[in-house]
Parts: sequence; structure tokens; C-alpha cells
Amino acid sequence: MYPIRLAVFGRPKSEPLRLLEGHYRDLLKSCVRLDLLELAEGRGEPGRALKEEAARLGPVLQSARCPVLLCPEGPARTSETFAAWLGARMDRGESLAFAIGSSHGFDPALKEAVKEKLSLGPMTFPHDLARILFLEQLYRAFQILRGGPYHK
Amino acid sequence: MYPIRLAVFGRPKSEPLRLLEGHYRDLLKSCVRLDLLELAEGRGEPGRALKEEAARLGPVLQSARCPVLLCPEGPARTSETFAAWLGARMDRGESLAFAIGSSHGFDPALKEAVKEKLSLGPMTFPHDLARILFLEQLYRAFQILRGGPYHK
Repeated sequence: MYPIRLAVFGRPKSEPLRLLEGHYRDLLKSCVRLDLLELAEGRGEPGRALKEEAARLGPVLQSARCPVLLCPEGPARTSETFAAWLGARMDRGESLAFAIGSSHGFDPALKEAVKEKLSLGPMTFPHDLARILFLEQLYRAFQILRGGPYHK
Repeated sequence: MYPIRLAVFGRPKSEPLRLLEGHYRDLLKSCVRLDLLELAEGRGEPGRALKEEAARLGPVLQSARCPVLLCPEGPARTSETFAAWLGARMDRGESLAFAIGSSHGFDPALKEAVKEKLSLGPMTFPHDLARILFLEQLYRAFQILRGGPYHK
């Protein structure tokens, strides 16, 4: 199965979010070899914390041919367009690593360095809820690519 | 407190979604008198089911000066723009009723009749997850209007 890495910061705050995450990770087991890396959040004031987080993300993102930051600056794709984007990269055998920032987002220098970005839409959601949204979209993308009934 | 109606179809499928919904409804108690109406889903083939659902939604939407359908055809607002939109309507004392469709969306005639729409973004999410997203955005909108620290 295709390997995809997803780097996130910290654990979801509440038990229902942890259960939902487990639910989508279980569903994804039939689609992808998902390697979810929970990195420690940075400490201190936001600028400093973001630099610490960028340093932890570096090796994960550099391990992939196509690193992607989930942030509002990215294109807001429909589920179908995201599936097509994902399918095209997998057809080329490109290794993929996605990253969801902490509650402060990403360090500006990291955003400058990583060209590929994706937005989950114009509204702001808590980062642990964004994690669920991304896992659901990843599962949906595989169902779209397979022509399954999940995405009508 | 300001009254806002929200009409939805059926119960969230899983316990974690029900718990998350409860969490946001609890948070919203300090902001708004939220009247969440769980209507029965329509039966039979999608077209017929949607007409049944539109008939059930009718009285709820007609009870408000400003009825709003959450659907992909609506404008995708940022959290800040949605908060400003909401604040302007509340300043005019307009009664508000939002509706989230069933998994098939809304009857085309209803979409034609109700002018005000809102999109939660270009990606498709399960309707019981969309319910959580909307409650979170409603809570976020009140925090933005109050200048609280929730929305940074």
C-alpha cells in the first residue's frame, strides 16, 4: 500500500476527537499505509515555538519528494480536485508528507521554503479538528479514486 | 440572549460526534439561545426524500426573518466575514434559522426559494461532521464579535 506521512503537533485535546481520529485511521487502513507522527509542540512565545516546531518538521518533510503544508495560504480544493491531485502524485510514485501546524500555524520561513500547500477552506478550525477533517478528506479521496459509494 | 434556530436531519451516526456536538452546544450556552431541531430524514429514493425533508423544513425556515441554507452553492466565508455577517443581522434584530441538509443535500426547489446560503468550504464533509463544523464556527463567530482570545 502507498505510504503517506502526516506530521501533527500534540494530541487531540478531547476524548471524542481522539475517538474520531481513531475511526478515520481505521478506515484508512484499507487505503494507505499512513504514518502519523505526533511531534511535541514548541514552547515559549509563538515565534520561538514555531521555529522549534519547524526544526522538528524539517526531517519529516525532507524525507518526502512532495512535502505539503496544510495552511490557509494554500489552494482550497474541492474533494474531487484533491483526489485528482493525490492520484496524479501517486501515479508518479512521489512520496508524500503532509503537515498540520500547531495552533499558531507554521513558521514563515518554513511556509516560504515548502512550495506545495493545501487549504481545508477559508474558515478557521481548531488544529485538532483540522486533523479530523484532513483524515476524512484523505479517506474520501481514496474512495473517489476507487469510484466507491462513500462520496456521492 | 439572541435566539438562533438550527434545523438538521437525524442524529449524528457515532458517539464521538454526539459528544463533540454536546461540547459545542455547551460552549454556545454562554452566547446564544440555540434551538437545535432534529428532523426526521425523508424516505425512499433521493428526490422523494428531499421533498419530504423540504416540507419538514418549511415551517422552521418560514418562522425566521432570515433563513439560511448551508450548502456548497453558498458563498464560502472566512470565520471573520461570517462573524461580521452574523453581527450585522443580530444588530438589526433579524430572527435567524439555519438548515443543514441530509446526506443528499436539499431539494432544488427549496434552494431556489431560500436566497441566503452559506458554504463551509469547497470540500465535501459528511453531514453529521458538517454539523460540528457549523456549531464550532457559530461559537467562533461570537468569540470574534466579543473580541475573546478563542480566535487568534
